[in-house]
Amino acid sequence: MLGVREGNIVTVSLERLIASLVAPSNEHADEARVYQGQLAKPVGSLGRLESLGSHLCGIYRVVPPPPMSAAVAIFAADHGVVKEDVSAWPAEVTTQMVATIASGGAAVSVLAQAAGATLRVVDVGVMSSLSTTGAGVDVRRVRAGTANLVREPAMSIEEAEAAMSVGADIALELIATGANVLVGGEMGIGNTTSAAALISSICEVEPALVAGRGAGIDDETHRHKVSVIHDAIARCGQPDDPVELLAEIGGLEIAALVGFYIAAAAMRVPVVIDGVVCVAAALLANEIDPIVSRYFVAGHRSQEPGASVGLGHLRLRPLLDLELRLGEATGAVLALPMVDAAGRVLREMATFAAASVSGPDERQ
Amino acid sequence: MLGVREGNIVTVSLERLIASLVAPSNEHADEARVYQGQLAKPVGSLGRLESLGSHLCGIYRVVPPPPMSAAVAIFAADHGVVKEDVSAWPAEVTTQMVATIASGGAAVSVLAQAAGATLRVVDVGVMSSLSTTGAGVDVRRVRAGTANLVREPAMSIEEAEAAMSVGADIALELIATGANVLVGGEMGIGNTTSAAALISSICEVEPALVAGRGAGIDDETHRHKVSVIHDAIARCGQPDDPVELLAEIGGLEIAALVGFYIAAAAMRVPVVIDGVVCVAAALLANEIDPIVSRYFVAGHRSQEPGASVGLGHLRLRPLLDLELRLGEATGAVLALPMVDAAGRVLREMATFAAASVSGPDERQ
Repeated sequence: MLGVREGNIVTVSLERLIASLVAPSNEHADEARVYQGQLAKPVGSLGRLESLGSHLCGIYRVVPPPPMSAAVAIFAADHGVVKEDVSAWPAEVTTQMVATIASGGAAVSVLAQAAGATLRVVDVGVMSSLSTTGAGVDVRRVRAGTANLVREPAMSIEEAEAAMSVGADIALELIATGANVLVGGEMGIGNTTSAAALISSICEVEPALVAGRGAGIDDETHRHKVSVIHDAIARCGQPDDPVELLAEIGGLEIAALVGFYIAAAAMRVPVVIDGVVCVAAALLANEIDPIVSRYFVAGHRSQEPGASVGLGHLRLRPLLDLELRLGEATGAVLALPMVDAAGRVLREMATFAAASVSGPDERQ
Repeated sequence: MLGVREGNIVTVSLERLIASLVAPSNEHADEARVYQGQLAKPVGSLGRLESLGSHLCGIYRVVPPPPMSAAVAIFAADHGVVKEDVSAWPAEVTTQMVATIASGGAAVSVLAQAAGATLRVVDVGVMSSLSTTGAGVDVRRVRAGTANLVREPAMSIEEAEAAMSVGADIALELIATGANVLVGGEMGIGNTTSAAALISSICEVEPALVAGRGAGIDDETHRHKVSVIHDAIARCGQPDDPVELLAEIGGLEIAALVGFYIAAAAMRVPVVIDGVVCVAAALLANEIDPIVSRYFVAGHRSQEPGASVGLGHLRLRPLLDLELRLGEATGAVLALPMVDAAGRVLREMATFAAASVSGPDERQ
């Protein structure tokens, strides 16, 4: 683990959140495990739903966990590295997709509604004017897209901190209005290049094993993407400090997700993760304080290779593997019914005793 | 595939249902695939959600598919083979769990409510009196438990047909009241022995590779279970006719599930499958007419080894793998939000054209 740099590396509010981090309660997780064994089913027969339920009880420090109230926040930003032709899509698609998400027509909009989750769209650093996108976008732009991370730092330390604070603020706002399960998502053409660079650097895995096809690139563009990631890491020399690394080769929406995850953990709220960009942010949050990752629930295994590398580093096993590679947090939102179900089992199932069901034969 | 025996092998209504089976429409599935490519996301990026959505369009013969209205039917019956001490649980647990399911306290009751599905509990052959179970159980008992399948046929051909008809009737009733996605589940102490025998026989796989730990048995009981399955198959000599095989070594709830699956397919309604007992019924339905399995959606990969053997035989890949081994159709019910999501994506997502989103760069 890398330490947080001395001094004013993050804003005061983020520093306070980090200082308030405590691990989930093993005592409550254990209590939940014992209780699962009394429910009207063979011991352990609900598999990963049981371990998820116990995890939730440890996070909330109560058995059973409260009913799920889920909120999704999508952070959008642009990336200077698109100048290097690493994406199949033009940069203006970020803005267009922000509008589509906000108006309910994107995959994550549809899936969030299906899961009964609220959806917030936050512009933390989109390049073009959002004048065309209309209502429904929370504009908290720290800067208009990052610099080209191959040539220079993507942003300053102060900008990275400011974007982290935006993410933290959004998490705190959502929790204040009743959310007790958070999903962070992202939209940003070019952001899988930044995410792969971060994952390669933190997990010390070759760029070629981390870089994926993003939103659909051909072999030649993929080779170029790998060399861009290689050059970016070589340029910045893998700084030890996670916020410095974030500023060097990260993105504004990635920074926002880091702050979002830290705030959720500080407020003892689980966050559901999917997608290579979110995994990169999860790794950075874990580098800042590994307690944060104790609040992670891996929702889905993205098809992007970097996602699996990062999840392995965090020792997280996703609930779903449906071969999604869309981002936007779609896989995490698809996993929300599992999170809901894990809590309901503990709240609503009868015990064998209450249901007057005989136990296993004595010979067992 | 084994043929259906000449003559009055099934009741007239089931014969009519079988005669009316048609495969899902490739044309509508193809139309859905083309439409998925126009939605506001990279082509194919929703992975298995897209193939599931196209499958649903083929089944319903319309693009997009209608909103999901799901119904779960749990068929309960007892098994004479419990006399051989193959289960960790006494036979009276079937009746007790039927009452628990009906009163809302079982895992499947909780998960069905979470998924917004209706739940029907059907006694198709429970041994003891259901006088203690109160309201909420649909008593359509064909006989009071099966005979011991190691010593004699579990039931007569006529009883197997009658139980299949119960299952078909329930499916038709649920569809008549508006259900368009069906889940069949089961409860019956001893039924994983019958299911493993059926799977071993149909898939021609050694009993030892199919028999699992059911609701929790020790090594010695497991060895005994394997030998019981071996003896049962040796006794009946693997009849070619699937209904005869069902009568020889099946169960009343398994027969009901076979009829349930056939009726759903005949009515062009998808059925979601989980659990080794449901997989055994699915294999039998597929033997009666392979068109039936074109309407299957594998919801979850049960931990019981027989389930994976049977799913492989049916060339089905489950949506979920959450290490459940409870039965009751719990894993299928957990997969219902994925079925719902697959349809919603097609109904509710914007196209790139409608959202005015730029396409991939021309160089791609």
